[in-house]
Amino acid sequence: MKYSFKNDYSEGAHPRILDALTKHNLTQQSGYGLDEYSLQAAKFIMEKFDAPNAAVHLVSGGTQANLTVISAFLRPHESVVAAHIGHIFTNESGAIEATGHKIHSVQTIDGKLRPADIQNVMNEHQNIPHQLKQRLVYISNSTETGTIYSKQELQELYEFCKSKNLILFMDGARLGHALTAETNDVTFAEVAKFTDAFYLGGTKNGALIGEAIIINNPALQDEFEFHLKQKGALLAKGRLLGIQFQELMRNNLYFELADHANRQAMKIKAAFSEIGCDFLSETFTNQIFPVLNAKQIELLSENFDFYIWKKINNEKSAIRLITSWATTDETVAGFINEIKKLK
Amino acid sequence: MKYSFKNDYSEGAHPRILDALTKHNLTQQSGYGLDEYSLQAAKFIMEKFDAPNAAVHLVSGGTQANLTVISAFLRPHESVVAAHIGHIFTNESGAIEATGHKIHSVQTIDGKLRPADIQNVMNEHQNIPHQLKQRLVYISNSTETGTIYSKQELQELYEFCKSKNLILFMDGARLGHALTAETNDVTFAEVAKFTDAFYLGGTKNGALIGEAIIINNPALQDEFEFHLKQKGALLAKGRLLGIQFQELMRNNLYFELADHANRQAMKIKAAFSEIGCDFLSETFTNQIFPVLNAKQIELLSENFDFYIWKKINNEKSAIRLITSWATTDETVAGFINEIKKLK
Amino acid sequence: MKYSFKNDYSEGAHPRILDALTKHNLTQQSGYGLDEYSLQAAKFIMEKFDAPNAAVHLVSGGTQANLTVISAFLRPHESVVAAHIGHIFTNESGAIEATGHKIHSVQTIDGKLRPADIQNVMNEHQNIPHQLKQRLVYISNSTETGTIYSKQELQELYEFCKSKNLILFMDGARLGHALTAETNDVTFAEVAKFTDAFYLGGTKNGALIGEAIIINNPALQDEFEFHLKQKGALLAKGRLLGIQFQELMRNNLYFELADHANRQAMKIKAAFSEIGCDFLSETFTNQIFPVLNAKQIELLSENFDFYIWKKINNEKSAIRLITSWATTDETVAGFINEIKKLK
Amino acid sequence: MKYSFKNDYSEGAHPRILDALTKHNLTQQSGYGLDEYSLQAAKFIMEKFDAPNAAVHLVSGGTQANLTVISAFLRPHESVVAAHIGHIFTNESGAIEATGHKIHSVQTIDGKLRPADIQNVMNEHQNIPHQLKQRLVYISNSTETGTIYSKQELQELYEFCKSKNLILFMDGARLGHALTAETNDVTFAEVAKFTDAFYLGGTKNGALIGEAIIINNPALQDEFEFHLKQKGALLAKGRLLGIQFQELMRNNLYFELADHANRQAMKIKAAFSEIGCDFLSETFTNQIFPVLNAKQIELLSENFDFYIWKKINNEKSAIRLITSWATTDETVAGFINEIKKLK
Repeated sequence: MKYSFKNDYSEGAHPRILDALTKHNLTQQSGYGLDEYSLQAAKFIMEKFDAPNAAVHLVSGGTQANLTVISAFLRPHESVVAAHIGHIFTNESGAIEATGHKIHSVQTIDGKLRPADIQNVMNEHQNIPHQLKQRLVYISNSTETGTIYSKQELQELYEFCKSKNLILFMDGARLGHALTAETNDVTFAEVAKFTDAFYLGGTKNGALIGEAIIINNPALQDEFEFHLKQKGALLAKGRLLGIQFQELMRNNLYFELADHANRQAMKIKAAFSEIGCDFLSETFTNQIFPVLNAKQIELLSENFDFYIWKKINNEKSAIRLITSWATTDETVAGFINEIKKLK
Repeated sequence: MKYSFKNDYSEGAHPRILDALTKHNLTQQSGYGLDEYSLQAAKFIMEKFDAPNAAVHLVSGGTQANLTVISAFLRPHESVVAAHIGHIFTNESGAIEATGHKIHSVQTIDGKLRPADIQNVMNEHQNIPHQLKQRLVYISNSTETGTIYSKQELQELYEFCKSKNLILFMDGARLGHALTAETNDVTFAEVAKFTDAFYLGGTKNGALIGEAIIINNPALQDEFEFHLKQKGALLAKGRLLGIQFQELMRNNLYFELADHANRQAMKIKAAFSEIGCDFLSETFTNQIFPVLNAKQIELLSENFDFYIWKKINNEKSAIRLITSWATTDETVAGFINEIKKLK
Repeated sequence: MKYSFKNDYSEGAHPRILDALTKHNLTQQSGYGLDEYSLQAAKFIMEKFDAPNAAVHLVSGGTQANLTVISAFLRPHESVVAAHIGHIFTNESGAIEATGHKIHSVQTIDGKLRPADIQNVMNEHQNIPHQLKQRLVYISNSTETGTIYSKQELQELYEFCKSKNLILFMDGARLGHALTAETNDVTFAEVAKFTDAFYLGGTKNGALIGEAIIINNPALQDEFEFHLKQKGALLAKGRLLGIQFQELMRNNLYFELADHANRQAMKIKAAFSEIGCDFLSETFTNQIFPVLNAKQIELLSENFDFYIWKKINNEKSAIRLITSWATTDETVAGFINEIKKLK
Repeated sequence: MKYSFKNDYSEGAHPRILDALTKHNLTQQSGYGLDEYSLQAAKFIMEKFDAPNAAVHLVSGGTQANLTVISAFLRPHESVVAAHIGHIFTNESGAIEATGHKIHSVQTIDGKLRPADIQNVMNEHQNIPHQLKQRLVYISNSTETGTIYSKQELQELYEFCKSKNLILFMDGARLGHALTAETNDVTFAEVAKFTDAFYLGGTKNGALIGEAIIINNPALQDEFEFHLKQKGALLAKGRLLGIQFQELMRNNLYFELADHANRQAMKIKAAFSEIGCDFLSETFTNQIFPVLNAKQIELLSENFDFYIWKKINNEKSAIRLITSWATTDETVAGFINEIKKLK
């Protein structure tokens, strides 16, 4: 069977997670997120992000995290601003709109929102009350094209949001990959400092499932559990999420896994560069988008699976390659061998 | 630490599930429910319930199953009829109403809905269009008080629903316990035959998490995946659910576990009966509700945890005891010893 | 054609309203509630209710008022408490639930909610976050059975609500009738003082259409216009509502019309009393519910239309009679003649 | 006071409407749209549009019409396609999203949607079920920039929609102006033939308020009254709407009024053309968008009110002028005098 670079959720969980599940299996625990593992996981996360007053909630998926957070934070007349390629705008089957809120989309060069983008949306919505009040800014880090926010970009965005009474919410389905990228200059503490809330994705970084929602802004923490329950996000066996995040955060495993995924991607990227290949976007995380001709794509497809992402011209298309915590050195070496043949 | 009879989701998963997760851990699979385990689990379920044309979808929790199913099946002006103690009416924090639908509640003796109950609701809602159109009947089996539907009851309810153009949906969070109760006379095939849709609960019967939604009525199957995605119920790593249900359905494990839980409860029930104890309701599943005086409750509480469920009078209250697949013979024997002392 | 006592919205508008519409017809005005008539109407209302800091919004109907107010005031996990016969619970086709909020209903003797009723609902919803947070109490004055709140009842209810962080909202579709009832002891100022918001109904008291929403609690006034627009309640030609309420509030016309309707009902009530008739409820507003036998109902039906409201026993039923601003002395005299024949 | 060309809802109603309201004022009628005027108005409309099997419903405003129709027609996972300047996308404060549905917007040259626009949206939403199912196409005629659909354009759009299982819904807030434009070639019958539903606006064409929803497609007519009630759109005194539309449709008054408005606009347009003025868009309805320099705008503003619509460059802006049934020849002559001075 071909090895798949289609995504970072093709395998199960890191073995330490399975071990921990087995170890704690028969210990009785309280339900609904009050188990001791979930509480410990929350502590680890608060320490890591230097956010002692944060509220941490574990849920099973990213769309669930997004829709629960956004609908809990907004009143009915408040809307969301997101990049046009933002996951909530294009890939969640109207999950946010189904809770009653419009998303204003902004075309961006690299998937990242900047203050001017948001200001433009606000400028176009001055005809009150016929037009909506923008209230929440949604960003992804890393973005859907693999790019990351610099410290300056994040800080400027956050300060802009505060000056406009906007909530800044970061989708961190691949936050580990962003924070361990070689070009990253955002510290863990700054993620918490420069957002009102964010989530830390487990599904795409070594967990069976699970995302940890971190609400930094105390004004937004109140009564969040009701929303979790109402949206079907409160697991009776929260222990499953607790055990996983406890292991992922213990001894930095989560970030080691993300770093591993990034390094594998960078090795592949280098191989494509060596043969003179262009990329759709310049990324330093676990997603890369080399531009290849049809013949090259065909050759690579013989032994590997991946998505053809975007047609560039009649000859060439960008493909998407995603590495993960589970991508081995052997696999990468084998793939690089194939790349070398493309020249 | 005290042993807890508070619920049936205090432990992890049956060891065969953990083994299977470990065994398949590094096999790459498609995401979003298209992994081979989910497909195999669906086959097993369809075979078991003799429902070759059913659509099977695996989700992570019961509230999620309920809200996704109900909102997918109804148009905005259609409402739900449920028992007053129905889980969706009292214990899901308005999850159904949050999708826009009213639930009409009916007081029942034993948690079970009967045709006359539904007819009464319909009779009271004749002032069209000022009053809503009832369209879906929600029942739980076993019910929230541990009772079960007989074949005749289920069939009559289903036939009534068909005659009134009502959808019959069964919450099967504890369906295994219902179907393996010693008084049960409903076959697996009849569950599928006499409902439009139901779900089979894993969380309360040996899985880490997971509920299997089975849609029998072909008219209701269409485009259900969109609703799963929109409600945050479509897991990227659907394999986690697939592997679990594959194991649970293989060689009948699921029903063996439920049967085990029922038997443990029946032993405890017998012990209470022997000391002359009354029960809040006559149950044959894994929930029992003995009525005790304050002194008896205090004594039992010394070494065991449980909920005081309902005050009966100034002297007595019913407690709730729930057994599970993980309740051992030793635990039960120890508890029975304590019961004997209460006389 | 038979005269109808079925409701108080069978005719058009008081002639002074039609005159004013004609008089101002060609004067150009701003749209969306910013016309000078709406502003003047708001002033009149604020003066009448001694509520100088209230926010007043005119909308076209009662269901619209209820759903816009309630959905604007609540967060997604907050619910409503109402009497079982409350208009929003039984006669608005799920309008409130369609905005995502559950209504907890309470059985009452006379359609009026009391603190103990609400406390009971709160007591039954302590299992947080599995159960909802009650946040808004909905009452009608006069109620759906024609009864009214005394000053003491209203004050106690309001103080209870404040002590529990509950919003008190009064549906005033027939508030004029309540406040002009001979048994009423609530002043205009007390209506505003002892509610967070209420509305004053025009549709059932002499307007073509229209209800005036008055938000007393400043914390609830913010950005309400967005909600009006979003729910389709903001009329481009708000002038239609403004002119009507300006006329209704000018020189107390609104209350004179309600008083007239009440007086007509009281004359009819006296006639039924004289022949020894019982009533379903003791009312002093424009709704009366005499209990008659089948023969009597048949006789009265020959020349008059009304609803048979409730079967009392095999012989008798209560009928509902509603008078209005347009019910003439001649009509009442004719009807009383018929009543006398029933003895 | 300055005369305002800001919109077509600045005045009250055509005098024949006020006369009819007065004439029928004390006639008792059934409520909720069952009055004889509403029934007659429906008949007139069905005759005019040659749509004997249509269902006609009268509501008070355009946003209300849009949100009630769209939410009634769609299931939760179905979305809407609209022009970027479509009223529902930009000017209804998220009314459609508040009912749970996403609107995909399309940039257009002239405010009109074409099959290719919709096909593009569908092409970009092939990743099922992560992306939504497009189900309803929303168009306005005349559009928000005053342009109109030709017969060929409408027919092609409708046929495309049918081939793709899409519902075609026309917002006719200014449908009268479209159908009486000198360049219009769409017959009344073709409006009904080439849409699944549309509405005919009264508010902007001589009524006090009111829009008539016409549902041509029988598959979409079912149980629509529930939705009207649930969304607060069902007026107790439906007679107000019935009387107005009865008068508007009797003897073609509605279309005479629209034609009058168009003619006044065309006279003004000709005057601007004569002085060599450009227009933002070429319109033949009651909206015109002449492009003027700052000095010209200042001069015109001395005696007339209008919106500055869009900045064209540093020197010039387009203004928006709207005429109505109430715009007199004298006003137009006076305004043309001012235009002549601008040369």
